[in-house]
Amino acid sequence: MRDDILKSLIEVNGTKLLLIILDGLSGIPDATGKTELETAFKENMDRLAKTNDLGYMVPVATGITPGSGPGHLSVFGYDPFEYQIGRGILESLGLGIKVDDKTVTARCNFATVDKEGKIIDRRAGRISTDNNKRLVSILNQNIKEISGHKVEFYSGKEHRFVTIVRGVDGNAFVNDTDPQVTDTKPLKAEPFGPNSEECANIINRIFEKSMDILKDETKANAILFRGISKIPIIESFYEKYRLKSACIATYPMYKGLASLVGMDVLDTKDSLNEQVKSLKNNFNNYDFFFFHVKKTDSFGEDGDFNSKVKVIEEFDKIIPEILSLNFDVIAITADHSTPSVMKAHSYHYVPLLFINRFPRPVDVNGFSEKESLKGSIGKIYSKELMSLMLAASLRLKKFGA
Amino acid sequence: MRDDILKSLIEVNGTKLLLIILDGLSGIPDATGKTELETAFKENMDRLAKTNDLGYMVPVATGITPGSGPGHLSVFGYDPFEYQIGRGILESLGLGIKVDDKTVTARCNFATVDKEGKIIDRRAGRISTDNNKRLVSILNQNIKEISGHKVEFYSGKEHRFVTIVRGVDGNAFVNDTDPQVTDTKPLKAEPFGPNSEECANIINRIFEKSMDILKDETKANAILFRGISKIPIIESFYEKYRLKSACIATYPMYKGLASLVGMDVLDTKDSLNEQVKSLKNNFNNYDFFFFHVKKTDSFGEDGDFNSKVKVIEEFDKIIPEILSLNFDVIAITADHSTPSVMKAHSYHYVPLLFINRFPRPVDVNGFSEKESLKGSIGKIYSKELMSLMLAASLRLKKFGA
Repeated sequence: MRDDILKSLIEVNGTKLLLIILDGLSGIPDATGKTELETAFKENMDRLAKTNDLGYMVPVATGITPGSGPGHLSVFGYDPFEYQIGRGILESLGLGIKVDDKTVTARCNFATVDKEGKIIDRRAGRISTDNNKRLVSILNQNIKEISGHKVEFYSGKEHRFVTIVRGVDGNAFVNDTDPQVTDTKPLKAEPFGPNSEECANIINRIFEKSMDILKDETKANAILFRGISKIPIIESFYEKYRLKSACIATYPMYKGLASLVGMDVLDTKDSLNEQVKSLKNNFNNYDFFFFHVKKTDSFGEDGDFNSKVKVIEEFDKIIPEILSLNFDVIAITADHSTPSVMKAHSYHYVPLLFINRFPRPVDVNGFSEKESLKGSIGKIYSKELMSLMLAASLRLKKFGA
Repeated sequence: MRDDILKSLIEVNGTKLLLIILDGLSGIPDATGKTELETAFKENMDRLAKTNDLGYMVPVATGITPGSGPGHLSVFGYDPFEYQIGRGILESLGLGIKVDDKTVTARCNFATVDKEGKIIDRRAGRISTDNNKRLVSILNQNIKEISGHKVEFYSGKEHRFVTIVRGVDGNAFVNDTDPQVTDTKPLKAEPFGPNSEECANIINRIFEKSMDILKDETKANAILFRGISKIPIIESFYEKYRLKSACIATYPMYKGLASLVGMDVLDTKDSLNEQVKSLKNNFNNYDFFFFHVKKTDSFGEDGDFNSKVKVIEEFDKIIPEILSLNFDVIAITADHSTPSVMKAHSYHYVPLLFINRFPRPVDVNGFSEKESLKGSIGKIYSKELMSLMLAASLRLKKFGA
């Protein structure tokens, strides 16, 4: 679908759209022969599947296992090959840190290294968040700038923090210094793309300084850089779709993704009921809501099949309250699969439950990976979902005479 | 499918191909839980579905509701994003008006305006066709040219007519002057694309002159311009597929589309039996026939579910006679859906019944939106249909050694 043509067809009306991403929802069967979604007792979704549309989506491209960034950008209708976004920028946005086009961001870990500088623990024994805050404060006091560039550090949870470098004119095509394994030294930052030498030098200088500053720490005596990146230039959700949009998510990364495309990030506490409360409170103020459920993915990554099933069941229980808001279109789907038996994201397609006013229901038993194959939407790419949501909310004019 | 590769594979043989478009055929279920196609008694199509191939087609792109132009161009195998065709040109071609690359055409309505020039009735009370002819004759007598450009007017039905301007070198990227609503003045023609100022000026001059000429008419005292356009440069059906092709349609617009891609437009009266007669009479003279049934769409647009069902049933009755001609390939499908419950074109996929000599039948109950999901062709884009028709008539060589 050509973006310019889609845009020329958009008209604004008073309809309400809801996109629910159950992160990593879909799986593959475990020893019982069923997936998490097939195992879960979820009477609401099963009922809705019978009277609405089902389909299945390729998140990015055949065979591609998406990270959270590409997974979500695709569902938002952005070509994930065009917009490659570092995790650093996403975490920074999620933490509410202001960034501009001269800001380099990186997600960092505190780590433990031995006397030779080889990594013993990539997460510094998951130090406490309080300890993290103490260390970040020390870093902020001792590294305020590198060759004229302002440097800032921001605490995350446990061993995680964010490094910000301001006023960088060039690019940030620089590798992670985290080698992903222990018993080896952190990697040097090296440019892998044009005009990124300055960025690599700054990262290496921060690393060297930090080694000196942290040398007496027993656990957190080194730092590892990941997802070094600058903010990409990206068209906002409103420019693209003329939708006033808001995000109801509990994790920084997804808030970051939403704010990257210009969604308002709404306050919510970390529970499904609180997220629904936020949805209700803000219902009148937006056309489009992105509602993100994280724990399906977390338990999938942990290989915890039963806990993932439970999250699906808990989510199903809040559906009646969501339905009572009378959305015109609700899409329930995933950004990618996270099969518990694989303990990781995977390349498998994701099922789509598409609740709307103009369905073509088919005979299905409920909402599952298998049943979604029979659905009336068939196979689409995630990045086509927004067109479908706009169409079913009658926000797209007829194309051509 | 790359056009150049497809073309390199084409070979000519004596096979006969038939494309039947039941305009807006497919729907969504009404209160009975069934679509028009599911409701219709259509023993022939149901029987053929069981022994042939089924599939479903996305007319243009996910979520896009196609107008008749893009809907048909797609089925003919042309990229509707590449060939955007104004309705003016289609109506003109359909009326048999000769156009060349310097001709600007526009569909016009006679309208009624009040003393201030505000529109009271966009269709001038649907004046009689005779009255229309009288007015068009007056316009032809009084506006023969505008700044050196020959101007012609052609009557259509009721309030509709076509305006033609000859010898325009530039483009015709000019807005409709019909504001689509009443109680406002007609819009001024303005260029929205390059090199279209002259065209806009001519349209505005015709409007001004016509206001003077029609000022004493009680109903038809103004004209509104829509679909202002020039003929696009488009490769002919014969160049593309090496098929001698003909159109059997009863409405100007579809004749226009067919002649735009170089099909011969055959004479027929406005009934299915007459259309079949034309098919029989011309069977030996062409390789490919485009057979268009309009009324499924008309009744869908009217929200007349039962009449749409009846048209499908009437069409089913002529199938044995069509089959007796022994075509090698017959595709029965739609250009888009027109669900009676929506009273409009829609974005839903269309079902495809593909009657051919090399089928891979599956177990289905008959021909319907639902059953087509199970079919052996699966989901394709409308613009892929021609490749399939060529293939099944053995008109495509093997690709590569």
